[in-house]
Amino acid sequence: MTDTVISSATREIVIGFDRPFVMIGERINPTGRKILAAEMGSGDFTRVEADARAQVAAGAHMLDVNAGIPLADEPAILAKAVQLVQSVTDVPLSIDSSIVAALAAGLAVYKGKPLVNSVTGEEERLEAVLPLVKKYGAAVVAISNDETGISEDPDVRFEVAKKIVQRAADHGIPVSDVVVDPLVMPIGAINKACVQVMHLLRRLRTELKVNTTCGASNISFGLPAREGITAAFLISAMGAGMTSAIMNPLHTEIVRAVMGADVMMGHDPDCMRWIRRFRDAPPAAQGAAGAAPAEGAARGRREGGHRRRVT
Amino acid sequence: MTDTVISSATREIVIGFDRPFVMIGERINPTGRKILAAEMGSGDFTRVEADARAQVAAGAHMLDVNAGIPLADEPAILAKAVQLVQSVTDVPLSIDSSIVAALAAGLAVYKGKPLVNSVTGEEERLEAVLPLVKKYGAAVVAISNDETGISEDPDVRFEVAKKIVQRAADHGIPVSDVVVDPLVMPIGAINKACVQVMHLLRRLRTELKVNTTCGASNISFGLPAREGITAAFLISAMGAGMTSAIMNPLHTEIVRAVMGADVMMGHDPDCMRWIRRFRDAPPAAQGAAGAAPAEGAARGRREGGHRRRVT
Repeated sequence: MTDTVISSATREIVIGFDRPFVMIGERINPTGRKILAAEMGSGDFTRVEADARAQVAAGAHMLDVNAGIPLADEPAILAKAVQLVQSVTDVPLSIDSSIVAALAAGLAVYKGKPLVNSVTGEEERLEAVLPLVKKYGAAVVAISNDETGISEDPDVRFEVAKKIVQRAADHGIPVSDVVVDPLVMPIGAINKACVQVMHLLRRLRTELKVNTTCGASNISFGLPAREGITAAFLISAMGAGMTSAIMNPLHTEIVRAVMGADVMMGHDPDCMRWIRRFRDAPPAAQGAAGAAPAEGAARGRREGGHRRRVT
Repeated sequence: MTDTVISSATREIVIGFDRPFVMIGERINPTGRKILAAEMGSGDFTRVEADARAQVAAGAHMLDVNAGIPLADEPAILAKAVQLVQSVTDVPLSIDSSIVAALAAGLAVYKGKPLVNSVTGEEERLEAVLPLVKKYGAAVVAISNDETGISEDPDVRFEVAKKIVQRAADHGIPVSDVVVDPLVMPIGAINKACVQVMHLLRRLRTELKVNTTCGASNISFGLPAREGITAAFLISAMGAGMTSAIMNPLHTEIVRAVMGADVMMGHDPDCMRWIRRFRDAPPAAQGAAGAAPAEGAARGRREGGHRRRVT
């Protein structure tokens, strides 16, 4: 049982074993979003605000905020974005940058206890980021790569994660404030990507006893109908012990997957969260083959299926 | 590695560890389908034929055929349905009845090696069904309940499954021809239903080394948006080792779940089956909150998400 508490000024979220999965909205990130990048670079945060509100309305428990715009003043923009998002929503944030000065700027203005995204196992980065995390009493995402790159061997990644946890402890940061990212690679390129991550997630949970997160969308990069792949990944990863993810809550299929897996794991007592969210959902579209009789569709929702099993 | 081979006159399907999941279409079943029941009872098999074709077109690898109509001549109707379905599709069948004479009638006309659905741990049923299974060289679904009913304790159900496997062996039926159904209960009524089944599935696979199946739709009985629950269940159960299910292939969300989980488990080399099936799928509907900017939607399909992770 490891609980990682993250907070805003007024709200607390707990990432933890045996708790509902924590969905961290990924959308406030200019990478690959030219319009958003241009707007953020010129000081226009209209879209950031809309993205923040929409993701929270869609069910995000936390939001990731990234301001990685080439040649821009990233520390100033990230600080501004953090302040703005905190002014329009009350969910805790993940402050996301590969530039240490930007993390510092975001931390300086943040109200509450954020998640710092991220530190890697690289020596220079460990010694730059961990003191900041300690200074602000934050939690931190630990990405399991180091100077040698990203190993395809999950056991090598485990050792990197272990090193980061140990170094964090040296800086006075408890294991409960380190959330390990096992690194999710596109399964279209690496067919064993998910099998490797499952193995690593199980070790991280049972041996290192840490909470975990990942950039879930990466798994489906380059594939058609990618939300279906991301959804299957999230449910599989939750079964292997993953406790949060940075993901797109605007895709209904993905939110359904996470909430459905919470039901499966017994983390939604009496299915009340599922029922509240979906009781007015339209009936599912039948007909992959386009040939479902209406009579059958109605039965599909009324009956439990096999006579001998549920009556 | 256990492989269960099922066949029609011209086609073989293997249910097995480390193979793609086998989807068994559940629709040819008059339970709860009044129109279908009336038609089958009066000798009209038009809808049976349409259901058979539609399910195979939607991706079913096998079809379950049930003719359980109160007060009807079930053996005659089941035999007729089996013959008709075999005349319009080439997938192997699961011959499904709680009446031994109906199983016998279906077996007598079946071409190939069917799955007999089912035997339980009840003494009388074991001694009636297993000789039939042996006589026709079939495989059999073993449901893990007995005279004492369905235990909520998965370890009790494991013992029932073990007893059936041992008894099958006494009748000369190899363990590879016994496919255990762990019994899936509605999660809306029993919150631990899935957790129990996962535990049992793991034991069945690692200790008893049997293939497994279930009536997947039962899990979501009584809940709204039930296809989402069934989809989450199937992915979770596949992660725990389940190798087939009786399910509704006409629900796209459910087929996507199974095929997505096959990708996750490394059972779809280079994702070719996924790509062939979904390359022309329309983009996912965004907007659980109804507020996704078009620019963002386009990026969601183009980009891998986090800059540092996939570029």
